[in-house]
Amino acid sequence: MTESVDLLIVARWLLPVVPEDTLLENHAVAIRDGKVIGICTNDESIKHYAAKETIILTEHVLMPGLINLHMHAAMVLMRGIADDVALMPWLEQHIWPAEQKYVTPNFVREGTLLACAEMLSGGTTTFNDMYFYPEASIQASLQMGMRASIGLVVLEFSTNYANNAASYIAKGTEVRDQYKTDSLVSFNFSPHAPYTVSDESLIQINMLAEQLDIGIHMHLHETQNEVIQSQQTYGMTPLHRLSKLGLLSARLSLAHCVHMTELEMQLLAEQCCHIAHCPASNLKLASGIAPITKCIEYGINVGLGTDGAASNNRLDMFAEMRLAALLAKGQSGDATAVSAYRAIEMATINGAKALGLESKIGSVEVGKCADLIAVKMSDLNLQPCYDPVSHIVYVASRENVSHVWVNGDLKYYQPQAQQGVFNGVEPQELSDIVQQWQHKMSKH
Amino acid sequence: MTESVDLLIVARWLLPVVPEDTLLENHAVAIRDGKVIGICTNDESIKHYAAKETIILTEHVLMPGLINLHMHAAMVLMRGIADDVALMPWLEQHIWPAEQKYVTPNFVREGTLLACAEMLSGGTTTFNDMYFYPEASIQASLQMGMRASIGLVVLEFSTNYANNAASYIAKGTEVRDQYKTDSLVSFNFSPHAPYTVSDESLIQINMLAEQLDIGIHMHLHETQNEVIQSQQTYGMTPLHRLSKLGLLSARLSLAHCVHMTELEMQLLAEQCCHIAHCPASNLKLASGIAPITKCIEYGINVGLGTDGAASNNRLDMFAEMRLAALLAKGQSGDATAVSAYRAIEMATINGAKALGLESKIGSVEVGKCADLIAVKMSDLNLQPCYDPVSHIVYVASRENVSHVWVNGDLKYYQPQAQQGVFNGVEPQELSDIVQQWQHKMSKH
Repeated sequence: MTESVDLLIVARWLLPVVPEDTLLENHAVAIRDGKVIGICTNDESIKHYAAKETIILTEHVLMPGLINLHMHAAMVLMRGIADDVALMPWLEQHIWPAEQKYVTPNFVREGTLLACAEMLSGGTTTFNDMYFYPEASIQASLQMGMRASIGLVVLEFSTNYANNAASYIAKGTEVRDQYKTDSLVSFNFSPHAPYTVSDESLIQINMLAEQLDIGIHMHLHETQNEVIQSQQTYGMTPLHRLSKLGLLSARLSLAHCVHMTELEMQLLAEQCCHIAHCPASNLKLASGIAPITKCIEYGINVGLGTDGAASNNRLDMFAEMRLAALLAKGQSGDATAVSAYRAIEMATINGAKALGLESKIGSVEVGKCADLIAVKMSDLNLQPCYDPVSHIVYVASRENVSHVWVNGDLKYYQPQAQQGVFNGVEPQELSDIVQQWQHKMSKH
Repeated sequence: MTESVDLLIVARWLLPVVPEDTLLENHAVAIRDGKVIGICTNDESIKHYAAKETIILTEHVLMPGLINLHMHAAMVLMRGIADDVALMPWLEQHIWPAEQKYVTPNFVREGTLLACAEMLSGGTTTFNDMYFYPEASIQASLQMGMRASIGLVVLEFSTNYANNAASYIAKGTEVRDQYKTDSLVSFNFSPHAPYTVSDESLIQINMLAEQLDIGIHMHLHETQNEVIQSQQTYGMTPLHRLSKLGLLSARLSLAHCVHMTELEMQLLAEQCCHIAHCPASNLKLASGIAPITKCIEYGINVGLGTDGAASNNRLDMFAEMRLAALLAKGQSGDATAVSAYRAIEMATINGAKALGLESKIGSVEVGKCADLIAVKMSDLNLQPCYDPVSHIVYVASRENVSHVWVNGDLKYYQPQAQQGVFNGVEPQELSDIVQQWQHKMSKH
C-alpha cells in the first residue's frame, strides 16, 4: 500500500551528512508536514509513496541546507563601506558612526531582507544573527521563510537600541516571549564580547540562559589585542574569565577563537563549548588564522560563519566551506586536514549542534525538518565530476544552488539559466568531450 | 570631424589599471583593428567617434581581461580526481599514472578547450600554460580565441610526449617556429622545476631563451621538502642554484615561491625576476602560504595563477584575487596589505609584465590590444555597491562576467540571466530598498 506524502524529491545524489561520509545515488526523500518521513532508492519510492508533488533532479546533489553560525544580517547594507582598513579604524571611524547614524528597526528589517535573499539563494537555510532590534530581524526572516536563530544582543553601553545591559536584556527577553512558539525562530543570548560586557551581566545572562534553556553566543579571542587587554585588565584571558564566571558549557558557542593556547582548546573541549569559525572575516580584518585543525583534534565542535557583510563581504557559505578546507591544510601543513566531507559537516550538522538544533536540522534524516538544498552539478565549470562531495567544496559555488526548501516549502529556486555563449565552441560539444573522458578515466 | 571605429564600449565604470588607483565613471573605450585607440567620457565619445557597433553597459565595470600566470590547462580533465591527499601520493599514485595512461595530443586539445571555456567565461583572456603537446594547446586556444603564452615544457625523463631534455627542447622550438607569427600566441621555455631538470639543460635553455628572446617559466620552492632536498643534493637552495647557473633575470618567472628567505627575496628583486603566486593550490596541497606581502615590499613583481584544476580545483581568477587579498592580510597581520586595487594589478598588468607582454596587454590604454571584460555589478548579491573596485575583489565572482573581448572581438557573453525566484519577496523590492539606503548612506 502506498503512503501519501506532500513532496517527493528524487535526486541523482543524496548527501545526507548523517551517517558520516555517506553519498547515496538515485535516492528519494519523502516529505510530509514539513518533515522528512522517508529516505529510499528511487525505485522503492515509486512503490511506497503517493506524492502530491514530485521533483526529479537528475543532475543534482540534494543535501541539508547550510547553517551560517555567526553573522550580523542587517550589516549587509554596509557591504564594502570600508575595505582594506585595519580593525580599530574600521570600527571607530566607519562602522560605529554609521550604525549610530542609520540603525533603526527599519534599517534592520530591510537589511535583513536583503541578507536573507543572499543567503537563501546561496543555499543557507538557517542563520544565527547578532544585531540590534531583533524583532525586525525576525520579521524579515519570517517574510523570507528562513530559519533564524536570533541573538539577543547585550552591551553595557548605550546605542540607538538600548541604554544599558539591563535594558538590552529586558528588550531581548520580551521579544523572545513574543516569538518563542514560532517553529522557524529560536533564540540565544548574545553578549557581544568579553570586553563590552561586565562580569555582573555575564553572570546574569548565564543564569537566565539556563532558566529559559537557550544558548549563549559571543565573540571571543578575535584578535591578539583582545587577549592582551584582558590580561592587563582582569589578569586573565577572556576565555579564562568566562570559565571563572561559570559560562563554559555546551550552551556556549564562541565566534572566531583565532588566538588560543593548547590548554584553552582543551578547556573548551572538556566543557563541550562550540566554535563558530569565520575564516574570511578573520583574514580580511587581519585578525589571523584560527587553529581549527588542532581544535578539531581536541574534539571541539566547529561550525562555520560568514560574519557580517561589512567584513567578508559575501554571505556565502560555499565560499566559507572552501576557504575553511583550504586554509586548514595550508596552516597545518597536512593536505588531509578538513576534508571535503568534514567541511560540509561544519556548514551543516556542526552548526546545528552549536545552536542546540541538532534534533531538527543539519542533516537529511527521517524525523528532521525538511530544510534541503539542491546543487546542480552539470554546469560546464563543474565538469568533469568524479566525486560530487569534493566538488561541493572545491568546485561548486552558490550560483549552482537551484532549489532551497525550508520545512519542506520551496523558498527559492533558480529557473534554468541561459548558458553563456562562446565564439569558439558550442557548449554541447564540450559536454560530449567531458563525458567521454570522464567515462574513460573513471574506469582506471 | 568624427573618427570611424569598429567598436565603442560605453561603461558605467572603467577600471583601466594603468594609471594606478584610477576608476573612471561613464567613460567610453574606442576600438579599431583590435586595438584601443581612444578613451574618453561618454559625452566626448558621441562627438568624436562614428562606431560600427556601440555597446552600452550601464551597470558594469569595464576592465582589462585577467591573466592566469600559471596553470596546466588540459589537467582540467583531472579536476577532482584525487582531493584531500598529500602532495607526493597525489603525484605518484594519482596524477602521474593518469598522465601516463591518458595524455595524448587529443587529450590536451580537448582538455584545453574545456579549460579555455572555463577561463573565458570567468574573465580570463590570457593564460600561461605549461603542459605536454603544446601544439594541441595552441589549436584549442586559437579555436576559442584566447591569448595564450605557451610554455615549452622540458624534463629530463621520458613521458608520452618526449624522451629526454634534448627532445623536449627540439619539439618545443619546432612548435614555436610554426606559430611564432600568430598574434595571439607567445612562448616561453618551461623547464618543469629545478628537481626535474639538470644544470646542463638549464644552461642550454637559458642560452636559447636569450637567442629567441623569450621568457623562462618554472616551478620553484613550492614545498619545504624541495628546498631541503636541493640543499642535500646540490649544497644550495634551488633558487641559489638557478642564480649560480645565471638564470636570474627579468626573463624569468617563478611559480609558487612559498618558502623563501629574506635574502632570497632580495635576490629576486635585484635580478627583476617575477613570481606567479598560486594561493589556492599552495593551500590545497598543504605547501604553505607564500610571503607575498614581503615579496611586494622588496619590489618583486607578483602575478597570479590558479595552477591546474587538479590542485585548485577552479580555473577562476576572481576566486584567486579574493584569496590573495585576504590571505596577505591574515598572514601579515596588516589589514591594508594587498588592497583590492593591488590584487587587480596582480591579476592583470603584473601578469603581463611577467610574460613580457606589458606593451600589449594588462591594462586599458591607448595603443594596447583590446582584451577587455565587463563585470555586471547590479546582481542583488553585489548590492549595495559603494566602491566598485573593492567589490570586484571581495564581492564579485566569475559568474558576474557578462562580456569578454580579445583583440576587440567578443569571445564570450552571458545573455541576461533569469533571476532567481523567492517565495518571500520580489527582487525589484529589494533593489528599491538597496538604492534608497545606498543613496542615504553615501552622503555621510
